[in-house]
Amino acid sequence: MTRDLKELEGQIGKVPKFFKELTVRDPEMFEMVMKLEGHIWDDGVLTRKTKKLIAIAIAASLRDTHATHAQLIGAANLGITKKEVEEALRVAFLLAGMPAYVYGKAQLDEVMKEGA
Amino acid sequence: MTRDLKELEGQIGKVPKFFKELTVRDPEMFEMVMKLEGHIWDDGVLTRKTKKLIAIAIAASLRDTHATHAQLIGAANLGITKKEVEEALRVAFLLAGMPAYVYGKAQLDEVMKEGA
Amino acid sequence: MTRDLKELEGQIGKVPKFFKELTVRDPEMFEMVMKLEGHIWDDGVLTRKTKKLIAIAIAASLRDTHATHAQLIGAANLGITKKEVEEALRVAFLLAGMPAYVYGKAQLDEVMKEGA
Amino acid sequence: MTRDLKELEGQIGKVPKFFKELTVRDPEMFEMVMKLEGHIWDDGVLTRKTKKLIAIAIAASLRDTHATHAQLIGAANLGITKKEVEEALRVAFLLAGMPAYVYGKAQLDEVMKEGA
Amino acid sequence: MTRDLKELEGQIGKVPKFFKELTVRDPEMFEMVMKLEGHIWDDGVLTRKTKKLIAIAIAASLRDTHATHAQLIGAANLGITKKEVEEALRVAFLLAGMPAYVYGKAQLDEVMKEGA
Amino acid sequence: MTRDLKELEGQIGKVPKFFKELTVRDPEMFEMVMKLEGHIWDDGVLTRKTKKLIAIAIAASLRDTHATHAQLIGAANLGITKKEVEEALRVAFLLAGMPAYVYGKAQLDEVMKEGA
Repeated sequence: MTRDLKELEGQIGKVPKFFKELTVRDPEMFEMVMKLEGHIWDDGVLTRKTKKLIAIAIAASLRDTHATHAQLIGAANLGITKKEVEEALRVAFLLAGMPAYVYGKAQLDEVMKEGA
Repeated sequence: MTRDLKELEGQIGKVPKFFKELTVRDPEMFEMVMKLEGHIWDDGVLTRKTKKLIAIAIAASLRDTHATHAQLIGAANLGITKKEVEEALRVAFLLAGMPAYVYGKAQLDEVMKEGA
Repeated sequence: MTRDLKELEGQIGKVPKFFKELTVRDPEMFEMVMKLEGHIWDDGVLTRKTKKLIAIAIAASLRDTHATHAQLIGAANLGITKKEVEEALRVAFLLAGMPAYVYGKAQLDEVMKEGA
Repeated sequence: MTRDLKELEGQIGKVPKFFKELTVRDPEMFEMVMKLEGHIWDDGVLTRKTKKLIAIAIAASLRDTHATHAQLIGAANLGITKKEVEEALRVAFLLAGMPAYVYGKAQLDEVMKEGA
Repeated sequence: MTRDLKELEGQIGKVPKFFKELTVRDPEMFEMVMKLEGHIWDDGVLTRKTKKLIAIAIAASLRDTHATHAQLIGAANLGITKKEVEEALRVAFLLAGMPAYVYGKAQLDEVMKEGA
Repeated sequence: MTRDLKELEGQIGKVPKFFKELTVRDPEMFEMVMKLEGHIWDDGVLTRKTKKLIAIAIAASLRDTHATHAQLIGAANLGITKKEVEEALRVAFLLAGMPAYVYGKAQLDEVMKEGA
């Protein structure tokens, strides 16, 4: 299990406290979520970076403030720039309304440092 | 106006009937939507192709059956493959649930031909 | 009960088949829904017409295709014009994305005749 | 640009910090959002006031806590009363569930003073 | 009215401040919401407990942070355990995505004490 | 793989065409979805039946017409009655608005025979 957490950190950066607790409380669920995450995030025909931008845009579009924040935290570790997130959020504007863009950008400014 | 429609077709493929009617009914709104679409889709730090994949994943996540279909129609013209859409939909699975993935894939199979 | 249905028809036009069945299947639920609808739609500081426009815009924003259709059906009976619905849908565009506007307008063109 | 901000303030009250930053960071996006907002909010067959009530009801229906707050801030400047917002939120109750109404009212009590 | 509040507290535990204010501000709306709540929560072919689990899962699925919290508050009074809520949230994971599960569990850990 | 499908059919009734195709196209994804579904649906502190009712209510609340239909298809095989689904949908009414209830009931009447 510990190895899995290390691997995941190598892949997506800081692993949320939630996952760490799950290893003790519900190891079966943890293992499955781990495998699912692995399968989804692993480089395939799309890079991990592209998939992260998709995840941020979905989270903002759903007005999911917690998921937007969580996805943005991991973004910098994958070499994603503020400008790239901002362009992804424009698509969220078109598909899901201006508040998705406004809130996403507010979170972005908070999570990612200037010049990143 | 006609020029704008031609340009948009060059960029995203077949322009929906809706936009054509808007040129007559509400030219001011049409012009703005046109400019907004242009600004959002134009190649920037993200390619048009990446942004299209983001749009498909958002539409599927919102259970927006009409937008999912509309975005998929334009995807092939940008050189997007079925495999790429499928990986984008996996992110929708994680962020927005299995039905987003299942419906997105069903639409994908309908809109894009095998081998694409 | 029959009287209630007549009253509701006087207020919002054609009563959906669903409500008619509810009078037999679950009269207690029917009565409550009836009273709630009455309280919500009755002219207050906002007119029934204004509230109908709000309902159409919410339904379109939620990508609720059935509710959008149902609300549009009743709109003409309240003297609502296509132009008014179209302006309400622009707000849905801003708050909930272009697909809310596009689908709402497509439904509008289907339900309301030209010139209305 | 400065003139546009002044105009917008005349129309909808206090302009969010976000818009001010956009004038520097992405003037092209800013200008488009400005024009879109102008076109959507300008008095047409519906008044700005009616459209604001629609926007509040949509934001509450989408459980968009940030947009609900933002739209409510601007409401008083357009002469909207608490009672009017409350009736708009009842429609949100019917179309999108009691929590849309409860949260909307909680925000309303916070943003608008009694007697307004 | 006071009797109704007492009854509701007997049924679902602590009545939110919102309902108490409604008795004064809009007694007609209050009475209707009361009756609707009563009809929906009363033991029928499904127990109140089962319906509470459904409500928690819906609230988490809609990313409705306020409703998720409010529904969880009342859960313990109905004899619902953490393990039961956790299994209900797994269904939310499948139908509405991992963030619905993660946020629901975070709230659960905050609202319900260990061992409950 | 074939054994897994048989097992799943034993558990939740007819397996959708989608899953069958996944066994060929993306066996790794299929296996994970299979395990996740198994872990989520298996009788635990909540019965499979209770979890199915939760799934139906979530799907209706999200206005997810395809998932609502799919979940209802499997319900009868778990001994769920129309009356039980109807009570679950009332909770969806309260949490997510009348259209969630109305559409859910319309689908219910279509999928489940009278007297069930």
